[in-house]
Amino acid sequence: MGLVAVENDILKSALLRIQAEVDETFDAFLPAPDDARAPLVEAMRYAAIGGGKRVRPLLLVATASLFGVDREAAVNAGCAVEAIHAYSLIHDDLPCMDDDDLRHGKPTLHKAFDEATAVLAGDSLHALAFDILTRPDTSSDPFVQSELVRCLALASGHEGMAGGQVMDMAAEEQNYDLRQVTRLQQLKTGALLAASVEMGSILGRVPPDGRAPLRGYARDIGLAFQIADDLLDIEGDEARAGKALRKDEGQGKATFVTLMGIDKARAQARMLVEQAVGHLAGYGDDAALLAALARYIVERDR
Amino acid sequence: MGLVAVENDILKSALLRIQAEVDETFDAFLPAPDDARAPLVEAMRYAAIGGGKRVRPLLLVATASLFGVDREAAVNAGCAVEAIHAYSLIHDDLPCMDDDDLRHGKPTLHKAFDEATAVLAGDSLHALAFDILTRPDTSSDPFVQSELVRCLALASGHEGMAGGQVMDMAAEEQNYDLRQVTRLQQLKTGALLAASVEMGSILGRVPPDGRAPLRGYARDIGLAFQIADDLLDIEGDEARAGKALRKDEGQGKATFVTLMGIDKARAQARMLVEQAVGHLAGYGDDAALLAALARYIVERDR
Repeated sequence: MGLVAVENDILKSALLRIQAEVDETFDAFLPAPDDARAPLVEAMRYAAIGGGKRVRPLLLVATASLFGVDREAAVNAGCAVEAIHAYSLIHDDLPCMDDDDLRHGKPTLHKAFDEATAVLAGDSLHALAFDILTRPDTSSDPFVQSELVRCLALASGHEGMAGGQVMDMAAEEQNYDLRQVTRLQQLKTGALLAASVEMGSILGRVPPDGRAPLRGYARDIGLAFQIADDLLDIEGDEARAGKALRKDEGQGKATFVTLMGIDKARAQARMLVEQAVGHLAGYGDDAALLAALARYIVERDR
Repeated sequence: MGLVAVENDILKSALLRIQAEVDETFDAFLPAPDDARAPLVEAMRYAAIGGGKRVRPLLLVATASLFGVDREAAVNAGCAVEAIHAYSLIHDDLPCMDDDDLRHGKPTLHKAFDEATAVLAGDSLHALAFDILTRPDTSSDPFVQSELVRCLALASGHEGMAGGQVMDMAAEEQNYDLRQVTRLQQLKTGALLAASVEMGSILGRVPPDGRAPLRGYARDIGLAFQIADDLLDIEGDEARAGKALRKDEGQGKATFVTLMGIDKARAQARMLVEQAVGHLAGYGDDAALLAALARYIVERDR
C-alpha cells in the first residue's frame, strides 16, 4: 500500500471515529428539557449533531494525542470549538447575513425553525462552548481550563472569527489585495483552526515557547483550507457540498482564486500543505494523522 | 437625614461611579482597529459604552467589596456580565425578535448600523465577556477565572438567560401560570442578576457553602426586578424609559402584573425587597449599598 493509501485509511477511520464521538458528546450535553425551552434545545441539537466534517475537533484531538491527553477530555474540548463553529454557521446563514437555505445538505436552522430561534440557538451554543471548557471532565486543572477559555474567546470574537466575518462583509466594496484577503481569511477561518491546534497543545501542557512548530502547521493549513474552499466554490458540486456555491463570484468578491487564478491557487495550497507537514517533522510517526489531515484539507471534494 | 435619603445618596454616587468605570473599561478594552473590522468595534462600543443603569456591574462590585476584592478586578468582571447583557439586548432588539427601534433613548444597534453588524457585534461582545474573565487583571488565580467563566456561561446559555428568552417567546400561546412566569423570569432576568452576585462572591473567595445568604438576596431581587419591570411596562413613561413600553399587554402575555394585578404585584415586589435585605443581616453596615440597590430596583422609574 502506498503512502497516500495508508494516509487515507488513517484519516477515514479517524474522521468516522471523531464524527461519532462529537455526536455522542453533544447528545449527552444537550438533553431535552421538560419545559418551554424544548424548541431551543431541539434547535441546538439540530445544528450540533449529525452534520459537518468535524475537522476542528479532529485537529484538536490529533494534536492532543501527540502528548498523551485523555481522549474524552480532548473530545470535549473539540466539541467546544465545534459549538463555536456551529453557532457561527447558524448566524452566517441568517437572512440578514448570507441568507442561505441549505447547510450540510439540510435546511438551515432558521428555515427548519424560525429566525428568532436561530439567533438564540446560536447564542446558546456560544455559551455552551465555555460551559464545556470549564467542566471537570474536560480538565481538572483550572489553569488549563482558563487557558482553553482564553484561547477560544480570542479566536472567536472581534479579534478573530467575527472580525474576519465583518471584513468579509466589506469585501465587495473594499477591493482587497492579496495581503488583505490573507488577513481576512486568517481571522475568518484560520483563527478557529489555529485555536483547535493550540487547545490540543494546551491540554497537552506544552508551554507556549514549545508550540512554534504546531502554530506554524496551523497557520499553513488555515490558509490552505481557505484556498481549497475558494477552489471548491468555483469548481465544486453543490449536491456534494450540501450548500450553495459560486456566491463569491456573483458578488465580485476578491478571493485567493480571483486574485491568483485557479492553477496558481491550487499550487499555493499544495505548497502550504507540504510546508505544514514539514513543521511536524519533530513529532515523527506520531504526527501521521495531522499530516493526513493537512493533505485532506486541500484534496477534499466538499 | 432619614434612612431612605442616606440610601439614596449612597446609591446615587455608587451608580455614577460604576457607570463611569464601566464606560472607561470598555473604552480601554475596545480600541478602534486599523482595518476593515472598524465598523464592528464601533458597533460594539455603541452598545457597550454610555448606556444602561449598570445594575449588574454594581451588584457584582458591591458584593465583591464585602470581601475586600480589588476594585479594578471587580469592575472588569462587572464589564463581563454587562457585555453579556449588552449582547442580549442587541439580539433581542433585532427585527426577527422584538423588533425594537429604541434602546437607552437612542436608535437600536441594527437601526444605527445594520442587522448583520448587529448580529456580529452581539456575538463579539459575547466572546469579549470570556476574554475579560481570563485576563490577569480580573484575577491572577486560574481557579477563580475558571469559576467566573463557568458561572457566567451557565447563566447566559440555554439553562439561563437564552432559555428564559425562548420561554418568553412562547408566552403568548402558552398561557403560563404564576409558577411558570416565575420560572421564565428566573431564567430570563434572574440568572444574570444572580450571576453578578455569585461572581462577586467568587472573586471574594467565598466557598460555595458560604454563599447561601447572598444567593437568597440575589434570587429575591431578581424577581422583584422583573415585577418592577412589568409595572414600569404598564405605568412607565416611554421618554424616561428610553424604549417602547406596553408591548406585553398588546401581545396578551401573562406577566406578574396581569396574573396578580397592579396592587398585589407592587406589594409582592416590596416584600421581596425586604426579604432580600433580610438576607444581608450578617454583613451589617458593609451591605448598605446592596440594601440600597435592592430598594432602588423596585422604586426606579426606568
